[in-house]
Amino acid sequence: MRGLRRVYFLTSNRSKFREAAEIAFASDFRLQMLSAPKIEIQSEDLREIASYAAKEAAERLRLEVVVEDAGLFINALKGFPGPYSSDVFKRLGTKGILTLMQHVSSREARFYSAAAFCVPNANPKCFAGIVRGRISTRERGKGGFGFDPIFIPAMGDGRTFAEMTNSEKNRMSHRAQSFRKLVRWLSSVRIGT
Amino acid sequence: MRGLRRVYFLTSNRSKFREAAEIAFASDFRLQMLSAPKIEIQSEDLREIASYAAKEAAERLRLEVVVEDAGLFINALKGFPGPYSSDVFKRLGTKGILTLMQHVSSREARFYSAAAFCVPNANPKCFAGIVRGRISTRERGKGGFGFDPIFIPAMGDGRTFAEMTNSEKNRMSHRAQSFRKLVRWLSSVRIGT
Repeated sequence: MRGLRRVYFLTSNRSKFREAAEIAFASDFRLQMLSAPKIEIQSEDLREIASYAAKEAAERLRLEVVVEDAGLFINALKGFPGPYSSDVFKRLGTKGILTLMQHVSSREARFYSAAAFCVPNANPKCFAGIVRGRISTRERGKGGFGFDPIFIPAMGDGRTFAEMTNSEKNRMSHRAQSFRKLVRWLSSVRIGT
Repeated sequence: MRGLRRVYFLTSNRSKFREAAEIAFASDFRLQMLSAPKIEIQSEDLREIASYAAKEAAERLRLEVVVEDAGLFINALKGFPGPYSSDVFKRLGTKGILTLMQHVSSREARFYSAAAFCVPNANPKCFAGIVRGRISTRERGKGGFGFDPIFIPAMGDGRTFAEMTNSEKNRMSHRAQSFRKLVRWLSSVRIGT
């Protein structure tokens, strides 16, 4: 077990945890889900939200923690729902987004992820991932979570994220990208310790 | 000028400041607008958001500060836009809300305000105000700000907040209520100091 290092992923979202843990699995790190209070600030910038939360939690819990913040930014809606995507999902669902987009022909959108890592007494380090695509005209698929049933990634074959298997989504998703960068960085800085 | 005491209202919203200053004017306090960074957390509870921001700013700036957070909560939309009302206003405007409400007959909503006061090295004190009403079917009026053109208070005569004069709105608004409570409390605790 030499080299296997535990990093705590502060989240209460099991689907999110599962996606991230799969990415980290091939590395020297094991993500452990940690359900604890988290201070999320309001900001336009997901990196700022994730970094603040990671720093605050690392100091309070005295642990090495990862916090990830993700959001769906729709061009025609000036970036809505953006940083408040999970709150908007809870209140309006995918149906609310489809209603807002009903007469909108320009359907470009992007999913963005910011994964911040922090050790007590240090500054947080943040990694971003982005996937461009478009909003579908109706819900499709049962996989994924959140707004996945209405998001069609541009680099895919026309299916929504929710129509893909986990590993298909993980090949291109915003979260996969940010966590891959994080894991690569963690591996590099640990060499020799 | 004996007894006139300056309290800093941390906000960059001039309309909000004007409303609050009018309420405080008859008291022993003068609100002074202070445009400085503010840490707003994400929460379902506006009192939590205002209290955290007031405490953080009081310690950082070493000043007596007031922070107010307000939101429009629409029953049929599970409280949307709620704590993120100003962000939603910027991205979707009143038009977005009317689109979401287009086939909705139950139009009950409430405006909520939480005004938190904090002195350095002390705990914040928070006061709430609420006004019940409904969402109009179209924008009406040029007064107020934010979602005022689509909110009809139940205790009014059918006009929206934006169709009222400032002093008419101040007789019943959520913000007027929270600030009136705050000013009353400030006056009471200062006696004898």
